[in-house]
Amino acid sequence: MINSQLISPQSIVVIGASNDLKKAGGKMLHNIISGGFQGELLVVNKREGRVQNLKAYKNIEDLPNTELAILAIPAQYCPQVIEDLAKNKNTKAFIVISAGFSELNDEGSKLEEQMITIANKYNAALVGPNCIGIINKNYHGVFTTPIPILDSKKGCNFVSSSGATAVFLMEAGMQVGLRFSSVYSVGNGNQICVEDFVEYLDNCFDEKTSSKTILLYLENISKPQKLLKHAASLIAKGCRIAAIKSGTTSAGSRAASSHTGAMATSDLATRALFRKAGIVYCSSREELISIASVFSYKKLTGKNIAVITHAGGSAVMLTDALEQGGLQVPIIEGAVADDLLEYLHTGSSVSNPIDFLATGTAEQLGIIIDFCEHKIDYIDAMIVVFGSPGLFDVENVYKVLNVKMDVCKKPIFPVLPSLVNAEKEIKYFLSKGHVNFPDEVTLGKALCESFFTGNPTQPSNINEIIDIKKIRSVLEEDRNNGGYLSISANNTILDVLAIPRAAEICVNSEQQAMQAAQKLCFPIVMKVIGPLHKSDVGGVALDINSNELLVAHYKTMMEIPDAIGVTIQKQHRGLELFIGVSYEQGFGHLLMMGLGGIFVEVLQDIKVCLCPCTKQEVILRLKSLKAYPLLQGIRGQQGVDLDVLTDIILKVSHLIEVIPEITELDINPLLGNGKDIVAVDMRVKIC
Amino acid sequence: MINSQLISPQSIVVIGASNDLKKAGGKMLHNIISGGFQGELLVVNKREGRVQNLKAYKNIEDLPNTELAILAIPAQYCPQVIEDLAKNKNTKAFIVISAGFSELNDEGSKLEEQMITIANKYNAALVGPNCIGIINKNYHGVFTTPIPILDSKKGCNFVSSSGATAVFLMEAGMQVGLRFSSVYSVGNGNQICVEDFVEYLDNCFDEKTSSKTILLYLENISKPQKLLKHAASLIAKGCRIAAIKSGTTSAGSRAASSHTGAMATSDLATRALFRKAGIVYCSSREELISIASVFSYKKLTGKNIAVITHAGGSAVMLTDALEQGGLQVPIIEGAVADDLLEYLHTGSSVSNPIDFLATGTAEQLGIIIDFCEHKIDYIDAMIVVFGSPGLFDVENVYKVLNVKMDVCKKPIFPVLPSLVNAEKEIKYFLSKGHVNFPDEVTLGKALCESFFTGNPTQPSNINEIIDIKKIRSVLEEDRNNGGYLSISANNTILDVLAIPRAAEICVNSEQQAMQAAQKLCFPIVMKVIGPLHKSDVGGVALDINSNELLVAHYKTMMEIPDAIGVTIQKQHRGLELFIGVSYEQGFGHLLMMGLGGIFVEVLQDIKVCLCPCTKQEVILRLKSLKAYPLLQGIRGQQGVDLDVLTDIILKVSHLIEVIPEITELDINPLLGNGKDIVAVDMRVKIC
Repeated sequence: MINSQLISPQSIVVIGASNDLKKAGGKMLHNIISGGFQGELLVVNKREGRVQNLKAYKNIEDLPNTELAILAIPAQYCPQVIEDLAKNKNTKAFIVISAGFSELNDEGSKLEEQMITIANKYNAALVGPNCIGIINKNYHGVFTTPIPILDSKKGCNFVSSSGATAVFLMEAGMQVGLRFSSVYSVGNGNQICVEDFVEYLDNCFDEKTSSKTILLYLENISKPQKLLKHAASLIAKGCRIAAIKSGTTSAGSRAASSHTGAMATSDLATRALFRKAGIVYCSSREELISIASVFSYKKLTGKNIAVITHAGGSAVMLTDALEQGGLQVPIIEGAVADDLLEYLHTGSSVSNPIDFLATGTAEQLGIIIDFCEHKIDYIDAMIVVFGSPGLFDVENVYKVLNVKMDVCKKPIFPVLPSLVNAEKEIKYFLSKGHVNFPDEVTLGKALCESFFTGNPTQPSNINEIIDIKKIRSVLEEDRNNGGYLSISANNTILDVLAIPRAAEICVNSEQQAMQAAQKLCFPIVMKVIGPLHKSDVGGVALDINSNELLVAHYKTMMEIPDAIGVTIQKQHRGLELFIGVSYEQGFGHLLMMGLGGIFVEVLQDIKVCLCPCTKQEVILRLKSLKAYPLLQGIRGQQGVDLDVLTDIILKVSHLIEVIPEITELDINPLLGNGKDIVAVDMRVKIC
Repeated sequence: MINSQLISPQSIVVIGASNDLKKAGGKMLHNIISGGFQGELLVVNKREGRVQNLKAYKNIEDLPNTELAILAIPAQYCPQVIEDLAKNKNTKAFIVISAGFSELNDEGSKLEEQMITIANKYNAALVGPNCIGIINKNYHGVFTTPIPILDSKKGCNFVSSSGATAVFLMEAGMQVGLRFSSVYSVGNGNQICVEDFVEYLDNCFDEKTSSKTILLYLENISKPQKLLKHAASLIAKGCRIAAIKSGTTSAGSRAASSHTGAMATSDLATRALFRKAGIVYCSSREELISIASVFSYKKLTGKNIAVITHAGGSAVMLTDALEQGGLQVPIIEGAVADDLLEYLHTGSSVSNPIDFLATGTAEQLGIIIDFCEHKIDYIDAMIVVFGSPGLFDVENVYKVLNVKMDVCKKPIFPVLPSLVNAEKEIKYFLSKGHVNFPDEVTLGKALCESFFTGNPTQPSNINEIIDIKKIRSVLEEDRNNGGYLSISANNTILDVLAIPRAAEICVNSEQQAMQAAQKLCFPIVMKVIGPLHKSDVGGVALDINSNELLVAHYKTMMEIPDAIGVTIQKQHRGLELFIGVSYEQGFGHLLMMGLGGIFVEVLQDIKVCLCPCTKQEVILRLKSLKAYPLLQGIRGQQGVDLDVLTDIILKVSHLIEVIPEITELDINPLLGNGKDIVAVDMRVKIC
C-alpha cells in the first residue's frame, strides 16, 4: 500500500498543527518547515488563523487537493478526517501520529479498524497510528528530534516498530557519526508494517542512487515470507541488513504484546529466518549501531586483519575479540616486516598488531597503511586504533587516516577512543562522513558477526519428483487418527521419498512373530502397535535374540491397553540421528536436525533451518553441530556420509513444501553407518 | 613494596619537569599543581631557572630530602638519578614515566633491572617505567588528561597494566558519569605490579573511608596467588571487583607480549582464578565500564526486577536481556496492580514492564517507584528507562528519579537513552553523582553478569589425613620413568586416597592370565604394560569373556614393542567420568571434571577449578556441566551420587595440594553407578 504520495508527496497537510512546539502537531510542522520541504505545505487548525507563519485552514473542505495528510488530532476524529480527505481531496497517504488506538483499548481498536477500512477503500497508504512519522530526503515528517544527518546514498534506511526506539537509536547513532537515508516508524502497523517497507525498499532499489544499508527494529514479524523474500533480494543486490527482533523471551514477548500488541514469534524461528535471508541478528540498539557502523565501510572480503595502533592494550583486547570471533590477526614477518620496521621508531613491533608506539607519527601511520594496502597481499582489512593521552593534537593523524580510508581498496575501520582528549579531532573526522568505533572490542565483535552472517541462500532445484498423489491418498485414509498418521502411512511416505527404513513386519500372533523374526534374523526390535507413546508404556523392546524372549515380550506387549498388534523390526546399529519438523504459527515450518538420544534431550545440540531448506544451508547447519566430529567419525567409529544425510533432510524439507498440512514430523532415530542411513521410527502429525 | 611515600607523599620532586605542556614532564607538573597537591612540590630542570612558576633545581644534590620522585627523563639517566635520590635525599618512592626499558630492547631491560635493584637496595617503591603515573586524592601524578571526577569513597579504584588503556577507560567512563577514587598505572610493572596494588588496597581497606569498587586491567597475572588472596579478601569485606585479562587468544597473547612483555596465561586459568576470587570477568573497556556502573549502585540481592518506562521498545529489549541472563521480570498482578493502575494514564500497563506511556509524568514515576519499594515485596530492584522525544524538558522526571534513588532501599538503575534530546538533563542527573546507562541491554547484561559472579569460596577443611609419606616413597621409586608413574604407584595413590579402583592383576604368562581371569570373573579388560599410549598401539582389549579370547589377546599384546606384561582387570560398567589436573606454569594447578569419552574429546563439556577446590565450588561446577542431567540419571539410566563424586574430586585436589610436583593427572575413565564410582585408569606425571 506504500505509494509515491507517502514517500515523495507534492503536497502535505498537517491536521492539528499548532504554534506550540511542545505539542506534537507543532513540532511536526516545525520539522517539515525546517527540513526545507519543497512541495506545498498546508495546515488545518480550528482556532488559529496563522500557524508558524502559514495560513491555517479552519475546515478540511476549504483545503485544495493534498497528497499526504499528517494527523495530530485526538483518535476519535481520525476516521472522519481520513474519509473526508480521501473522498474529497484525493489524499492518498496518511500518517497518523496520534495515540489512543489498538494499543489503548477495544474502543481504540475499533477506531483503528475503521481508519484502515477507509484507507483501504480509497486505496490510500496509512502509516501508524501511534508512530513518530517518517524522515526521508523529501520531507522531515516526524514530531520528534533529533533529525539525524541525512545522506540518501550512504546513510542507513531504518524501519522501526517503535517510535521511541527509533529516536533513541538515532540519538546513539549520532554520537558515532552514523548517517541516515530514511527513517520509517510504523507504530501499530496494521496497514503498513516493517515488512512492507522492506518490500518497498526492494522494489524501488536503484543500484546507483539507493542506500545499501537497512536497519530494522521489529517487535513482531507478521509477514515472515515477505521479509524473507525482500531481505534476501536486497542482499542479493548488494545491500546489507541488520535487525533487532525483540520479545524473544516469554517475559519479553509479554512486554512486546502490551506495547504494540505484538504476537510472540519464537527466537528460534526468527534466527532461522534471519539466517536464511542473510540478515545480521542484533539484540540491542548498541549492537545494531555497531553493525550499521561496520556496514558504512567497505565490505570485508577475507579473514585477515591488520591491527594498527599506538596503544598496545587496545590492540591486545581487539586481537582477542577478532580471533575469538573467527577472524584472524596473522603474523607479519620476513622481508616486508623488516622493510616496514625501518620507517618506524625503535621498539615498534610490526608482527601484527603493528604497534608504532605512543610516539608514532601521522607519516608513519600513512606508511603502515600503504604497506598493508600494497605490499602485504594476505591482509584483507585494517583496523586503526589511535587515541590521545592529551599532550598534543592528533588532527594530522586523523587527516592521514581520512585520506587513506578514501583511497585504499581494502577496508579500514577506525577506533578513535579518546572521546575527551580528542573530542575536537574526532568531530573533524566525523565531519568527513566517517563513523567512529569508540570501543575496539565492540568493533571486533560486530565485524565478526557481520562477516559470518552468510548470504541469503538460493532455493535448491528439487531433483526428485515426489508422488504427491500417493501421499495424499494415505493422508486421506488417516485423517481420523488424532492427527497422527498410522505406521503404514508413515511407511508409504518414507517409501515415496525413497528414505530407507528398517524392514518390519506387523504381527498379531506369537506364530506370526516367530516367522517374522526368522525372516528378518535376530537381533530384532519389537514395538507395540496402538498406544502413541510406546516407550512410556513399556511397548518397545530391543536386542531380542531368541524365540523365548520374543514370545515373552509379545505376551507382555499385547496386555498393554490399546495394543492391537506388534511390529517386528530388524535391529540396526549406527549413529543415532534425528530429523524433526515443527510448524511455527503464521511463520512456516522449522526443520531441526542433529544427533538423537542425549544430544537432543540433554545437550540440545540441534540446528534449525526455515523450510524449504537448501543443500548449502543443511550442510552448514550440520557442520555447526557440536557433535559434528561424531558425524565425521572419530576414534575408529564410523561416521555417516554427509551427502546421504543431507539428501534425506532435503527430501523431508521437500515433503513439507508439497504437503504443508504436516505440522509435526520426527524421524527419531535414524541410524547411520557411512552411506547406510535407515529410518527406524517416524511420527507425523497433520492438521 | 608500596609505601606511604608513594601513596601520600609529603613532598614530590618532578625530575625533568618542563614549561612545555606538550611534554610529559611539563604536563605531569601541571597536573600536580592544578590537582592542588598539599605537600612540598619541587622541580629539577637542567636548563631553566623557573618552571611553571616554581623554582627549578639544576642538580639533584641541591634538593632537600624528598619522599617521592617522578622521573620524566631519558631512560639511560634513570638508574643514576634513582641512586642519588635514594642514597642522599631519602627518597622512598619513584614513579618512572619514561619509556625505553624492557619493552624496547635488551639494553632497556638492563637499565630496568638496574633501577629495580637500586630501588630494592634502598627499600624504595618503584612504579613503572613506561607508565602514565598515579592519580589519587593526594596528588594527580599523571602526565595525561583527562583527570576524572574523583570521589575517594564512592569512585572506583582502577589499576591498569597499560597507560593508554587507563586513559581510554577514564575517557569512556566519564561519558556516563563514572567517578574514580584512584588510578594506578603500573607500566612494565617489574617491581610493583597490578597484584601488588590489589594487596595494598586490601591491607589498607577501611570500612568507613575506602571505596568498595575495584577495576583491573591485566595483560599478565604474574602473582596469581596474591591476586586470589587479596581479591577474595576484599570481596569478603564488601568490595566488588571486575577485571579485564587481555591476551586470551594466542594472537592476543602474542600482542600482549610485544606490548608489555606479558607472559601468556590461559584464559581457562584466568577464569578459574576470577571465579574463585569472585572477580567479574570482562573482555572490553565497555564491559568493564558497565560493570563498574552497576557496582556504583546498591547491590542487587534478588532476581526480581521491575522494569519501569515510558518507552515500550526499550523495555522489551531489556526484559529479554534480563531473562536471558537469568534474572526475572516477574508479572505484577492482583489488587496492588489495580491500585497502581489508578494513578496512571489510561492505556498504561503495570504487569511488568510497567509502561506508563509517552505521556507519563514525573509524579507518576514517583508513585510507581513507591509501589515497587514499599508495596510489592517480591521486587528486588528497579530499572527506570526514561528518555525524551524532544518535545519538552524531562528535568522534573530526573529530579524525582534522583531523590528516589537516594531514599529507596531497593537499588534503582537509570537508563537515560536520550543523549541528544536530554543532554542537558542527563548532565544535571550525572552532577548529582549518578552514573547513566545509555543502553538498556548493556545494563541488563552487566547486571546479570555481576549478579551471577559468585562470592569467593572459602577453603574447605580437609577431612582426610593423607598418608603423604607413603605416596612420597612410591614417587621416589618412580622418578626415572619419564615423569609418568608406574601402575603400582598409581594404585598406591588411589589406595591411600581411598578412591575405589577396578580390581586388577598383573600377569606375565598365559597361565597367569587365565588364573587372573578366573579370579576376577569374565567379562574382563586387558591392558598391555610398558607402552605409554596403550590404545594407540592396540594395547587395550575390552569385553573379553572367554579363555580363547584371553589367550589370543595375550599373545598379540606381548608382541607390541616394549610390552613387559599385561594387566587383567574386572570390566566395570557405568557412566564414564573424567577427572584431570594440569599445571599452569607460574599459576597453579587446574582441576578439570566432567564426563569422559566424547564429552571430553568432542563436546569439550569440561569444567575447571583452580586448586585447592572447595566442596561448594566442585558441586557448582558439576551442576554447570551441559551433561549434568546424565549425572542425575535420565530415562531410567542410573546417574552417579554427587556427594561421592565430589568427595573423590576433593581428594584429588587435596593430593595436588600436598604433592604439588604432580604436573599432570588423569583419571579417565572413572565409571559411576550411583554411589559406586570406580577409577579404571589413571595416569600421573611428576616433575
